[in-house]
Amino acid sequence: MIVVMKVGSPEAEIARVSEELIGWGLTPEKIVGQHKVVVGLVGETAALDPLQIQEISPWIEQVLRVEQPFKRASREFRHGEASEVIVSTPSGAVHFGEHHPVVLVAGPCSVENEEMIVETARRVKAAGAQFLRGGAYKPRTSPYAFQGHGESALGLLAAAREATGLGIITEVMDTADVEKIAEAADVVQVGARNMQNFSLLKKVGAQEKPVLLKRGMSATIEEWLMAAEYILAAGNPNVILCERGIRTFDRQYARNTLDLSVLPVLRSLTHLPIMIDPSHGTGRAEYVPTMALAAIAAGADSLMIEVHPNPAKALSDGPQSLTPDRFDRLVQEMSVIGKAVKRWREPAMALV
Amino acid sequence: MIVVMKVGSPEAEIARVSEELIGWGLTPEKIVGQHKVVVGLVGETAALDPLQIQEISPWIEQVLRVEQPFKRASREFRHGEASEVIVSTPSGAVHFGEHHPVVLVAGPCSVENEEMIVETARRVKAAGAQFLRGGAYKPRTSPYAFQGHGESALGLLAAAREATGLGIITEVMDTADVEKIAEAADVVQVGARNMQNFSLLKKVGAQEKPVLLKRGMSATIEEWLMAAEYILAAGNPNVILCERGIRTFDRQYARNTLDLSVLPVLRSLTHLPIMIDPSHGTGRAEYVPTMALAAIAAGADSLMIEVHPNPAKALSDGPQSLTPDRFDRLVQEMSVIGKAVKRWREPAMALV
Amino acid sequence: MIVVMKVGSPEAEIARVSEELIGWGLTPEKIVGQHKVVVGLVGETAALDPLQIQEISPWIEQVLRVEQPFKRASREFRHGEASEVIVSTPSGAVHFGEHHPVVLVAGPCSVENEEMIVETARRVKAAGAQFLRGGAYKPRTSPYAFQGHGESALGLLAAAREATGLGIITEVMDTADVEKIAEAADVVQVGARNMQNFSLLKKVGAQEKPVLLKRGMSATIEEWLMAAEYILAAGNPNVILCERGIRTFDRQYARNTLDLSVLPVLRSLTHLPIMIDPSHGTGRAEYVPTMALAAIAAGADSLMIEVHPNPAKALSDGPQSLTPDRFDRLVQEMSVIGKAVKRWREPAMALV
Amino acid sequence: MIVVMKVGSPEAEIARVSEELIGWGLTPEKIVGQHKVVVGLVGETAALDPLQIQEISPWIEQVLRVEQPFKRASREFRHGEASEVIVSTPSGAVHFGEHHPVVLVAGPCSVENEEMIVETARRVKAAGAQFLRGGAYKPRTSPYAFQGHGESALGLLAAAREATGLGIITEVMDTADVEKIAEAADVVQVGARNMQNFSLLKKVGAQEKPVLLKRGMSATIEEWLMAAEYILAAGNPNVILCERGIRTFDRQYARNTLDLSVLPVLRSLTHLPIMIDPSHGTGRAEYVPTMALAAIAAGADSLMIEVHPNPAKALSDGPQSLTPDRFDRLVQEMSVIGKAVKRWREPAMALV
Repeated sequence: MIVVMKVGSPEAEIARVSEELIGWGLTPEKIVGQHKVVVGLVGETAALDPLQIQEISPWIEQVLRVEQPFKRASREFRHGEASEVIVSTPSGAVHFGEHHPVVLVAGPCSVENEEMIVETARRVKAAGAQFLRGGAYKPRTSPYAFQGHGESALGLLAAAREATGLGIITEVMDTADVEKIAEAADVVQVGARNMQNFSLLKKVGAQEKPVLLKRGMSATIEEWLMAAEYILAAGNPNVILCERGIRTFDRQYARNTLDLSVLPVLRSLTHLPIMIDPSHGTGRAEYVPTMALAAIAAGADSLMIEVHPNPAKALSDGPQSLTPDRFDRLVQEMSVIGKAVKRWREPAMALV
Repeated sequence: MIVVMKVGSPEAEIARVSEELIGWGLTPEKIVGQHKVVVGLVGETAALDPLQIQEISPWIEQVLRVEQPFKRASREFRHGEASEVIVSTPSGAVHFGEHHPVVLVAGPCSVENEEMIVETARRVKAAGAQFLRGGAYKPRTSPYAFQGHGESALGLLAAAREATGLGIITEVMDTADVEKIAEAADVVQVGARNMQNFSLLKKVGAQEKPVLLKRGMSATIEEWLMAAEYILAAGNPNVILCERGIRTFDRQYARNTLDLSVLPVLRSLTHLPIMIDPSHGTGRAEYVPTMALAAIAAGADSLMIEVHPNPAKALSDGPQSLTPDRFDRLVQEMSVIGKAVKRWREPAMALV
Repeated sequence: MIVVMKVGSPEAEIARVSEELIGWGLTPEKIVGQHKVVVGLVGETAALDPLQIQEISPWIEQVLRVEQPFKRASREFRHGEASEVIVSTPSGAVHFGEHHPVVLVAGPCSVENEEMIVETARRVKAAGAQFLRGGAYKPRTSPYAFQGHGESALGLLAAAREATGLGIITEVMDTADVEKIAEAADVVQVGARNMQNFSLLKKVGAQEKPVLLKRGMSATIEEWLMAAEYILAAGNPNVILCERGIRTFDRQYARNTLDLSVLPVLRSLTHLPIMIDPSHGTGRAEYVPTMALAAIAAGADSLMIEVHPNPAKALSDGPQSLTPDRFDRLVQEMSVIGKAVKRWREPAMALV
Repeated sequence: MIVVMKVGSPEAEIARVSEELIGWGLTPEKIVGQHKVVVGLVGETAALDPLQIQEISPWIEQVLRVEQPFKRASREFRHGEASEVIVSTPSGAVHFGEHHPVVLVAGPCSVENEEMIVETARRVKAAGAQFLRGGAYKPRTSPYAFQGHGESALGLLAAAREATGLGIITEVMDTADVEKIAEAADVVQVGARNMQNFSLLKKVGAQEKPVLLKRGMSATIEEWLMAAEYILAAGNPNVILCERGIRTFDRQYARNTLDLSVLPVLRSLTHLPIMIDPSHGTGRAEYVPTMALAAIAAGADSLMIEVHPNPAKALSDGPQSLTPDRFDRLVQEMSVIGKAVKRWREPAMALV
């Protein structure tokens, strides 16, 4: 349920309403929108009468039920308004959200050594990226495949961060590693295979860094939003959703089927920012640029693109990685669409 | 197998090479590209030695094997060059292909009566469409649902064609109706449910009107191209492929999953033009505009969009139809992306 | 809607009720069950009041609404009673249905020549089969693959029928061939790729031979029953449903995923008999026996199994065909389960 | 790679061969089969020459390469022989494997309170079950749904174990809980959502209790066996695979599609025992019995069935739970098929 306050409601009155609702056994969450303040209510609301709540204060404009099973993640919970996730990086705060320019995240699948990660960071930064992605802990299908350099790779990411000012996004796979990774990363990533690892979701929800939540490879949109709800319910409001390709009947040419229709669907269901990962989404470098352009035209808030200095020698996911040169060109191509839809950062900012 | 002729090969020599190859029991098809002429060979080529063919003439540059199971549909068969499908309409020839502006096809799911179809035709023409879509024969899940007005609807489409100069695209469902429909339509459509109705494919391949081949709802890309191959092999080179959403595990919010990744994948595999149908692809009018924009950014050669004067009262597929007003606005939105990617018709032409 | 008549209702009264309902603009269908007579009603029933119908006669016990979109195919339409499809063959009538022994259908994918089809027919007959399957017209993914011997193969099937007394099941792919095939076959098959070829469904529904309706490779159970409804609505009550494997995300080891859970699901939804085809269902001969045993334990009314005298040389589907010897052994294995679930024909009958 | 020793090879020679191979940088694993001893080799074997290894000892019969990416899990690794997982329970050792009777596992989705779990345990034990299933930690789609009683439920399972002598199977969701659960359970379960939680797989592979590995809802068979390989590679050879339904395009009537074809496929690929869970596999109690019978006919080594004293009031998964009475009847029905395929425990044993 949400309580929509009238424009101009005094702070004290909003606080009083919240207090009263705590007395009713509910958990109120104050959401300050551009024009209005909304008080979201979580708890046993099924039996409550909206009219009864309305009587608490003359400053209450409306009391509405959230029909979706995902409450805090639903667009209704914010009375239709988008949220933004603000991430602080060495180069300043970066805003993810539908009223902000597209944020570019780029980097290799895994952190291989200091030289490659710092060099890649410099290149993607120069091209216009604001975040470096790179795996320290890697979920690999085979136990005999390279599993990531783990803790030592976190140090290398820190070096790349310091050298370039880029924010860091890296994946956590084990509840036991959450603290360590949250310390090193600016955004903590939960991967597709762990989208319904509920212990992990609760744990990343209980720490303070923003969370990037990848869609499970056969997760429905509802399941994905319920996974986000786990993080929100645990107290962390900063969740970015990332589509990375779903599993379908046809895997002959592309590794996954990038589902761009999540863009209009999620926009209507949730207020959370949306990132698209065409690299995992297609699994083939040659298909990445086209899908990146489509994602921007469709309104993506952010793009995550794999870039490796030498894809042919990558320890993982080489076939889907762009070279730094190809990424440079892609950013140019993206800027054409990005400007057309008025979601592109000013060149001046890109040079910062 | 293909025989690539050297630049400047004399016509007579190409004819002689073809003659000779007929003598070898093969079926040569001459393909005139922008720079070169290629002779495609169909038949029992597995045992042939390319070098042996090369010796036929000093004007032969190269003899290459087509590795794909789809021969005539493969990009290799045209030595990498795109084909174009030219459709003659009352307003002149319209070109579908990757070197041409995006072609807009619009109209209702089914032809309901003369007034609605002529009125809709006028509106979509004014907005910039070059083709009118509209079903006379409708494939409906239930035998108790409206099955289309059949033959009489073909007359109504003719009226709309005459009134507006738009080309007509309509679906054929029965081999017995092919002639009748080919007479009325400028492009004959084979629907998703009949993509592997091989009798129908052979029949539309044996007539002269261009064919729009929709992807089956769980057809792999290879199966789809093999279906196109049936048409090409039957003698009709004018095939347009249309993606209209595939079936996946999640159908809660969208009716199908529009697979835009076919754009880069098909581009690398085939020379045929590609159309995207975001209306069937999502099944919900509110998601159509976003996906239409994404399709253009991804390089679609054509878009098919359902427009109905009164979606709430449509006899079929109302929920996925745009109103004429919304379509007007969408064309404006599309033109922004279309111009950015240099695939938009000049305004002057749109007024013709 | 269905009208359940009281036990002992006079024939004349049932006729009178039907007449009256015709007067209301409905199409009544009399269904004689084991204990009761039910009058099924098709037409515009949404606005009717069951109580009003009840008043037509004191012999009416109940008037019930059929909630499913498939009316005639629904179990409710027969007030919960199973139907049986009786096929006359040279060796007498064969009953398909849940109160009858499992019917075995066997034979090659395609009819290759007289010797092979007659020989295979003798072998499967000796093993216990009552029907011979064999394709005259073959739906092949590639236009360059063997397309079946067509009309001449129908003659060879007739020869095998005469030589062995087996019933014949063969596929129709084109509305233009329905008559010809219905003349040659005891059961006309509509294949998976044509499950939603509605023109074909109407045509086979308008002729008299029983129809075997294979499930489309990604058809939902509801769509499949709606396809059956097309045939029933066209006047042919004799439809057998055949599961032959669905398309899923994993095709590495098996060609399709045989969905045996259709057995309990269909039992609750429809009265029609159910056949299982583990040959197409798995695509690999080595997996066929296990799935055939499972199908019988799960209550299949019939099994269709591909048998070829020399699978390695088959013109189509060799990898999924059993040799006649392996089929002999499989029938022995099936008889163990068949007897355990009391659905096996007496040996004496098998020798007939 | 595997080294097959000749029949009668002296122990000392096998030890010497192993020592020598350790010297080559490999990890040998001795597998004692019914007739022969095989030494499995893990490590960098790609560059090794089998003939070179053969020269180590005249007692070596053959050296073979394991072609599958899953090494220890592959059937080849044991030279074609099935493995068995022996679980010690208060009532003695229970054997899971293809040469043993079907093992029944039954119980509620979650442990709700002492009375319900002990009562259910008594009932399923009396019916013939050897293991009690019951969730202490529950993976739930919604953060607001009942999450299991956690640690206190482990105590209740211990009480039920003591009261009945049944073995206990319960799920672990967090690496931090592995020890605690391994202490309470006789078999530790990894659920479908965690099938590719590689941190968890490594952790359960490093402890001593047998592991039940459920198939992920859209995991390919290869991915599933690679997940098993993680556990085997971590040192735990006792893995039971459990099919619990996959996700497909049709979820209207059944929650998942139970994929029984894993039985013949897994038999050919792996030596590990196979369990089938028709309760999650269908999601509806009414479909469970039919699929349980099919599973036994298809050769399942074990069945897991949800039983709840009052399904309508279950805190989770009520719709798919059988009542104890229905379970009693199902065991009778299963025994008919189980005896027919000679995989049923003698009644005398059932009474123990």
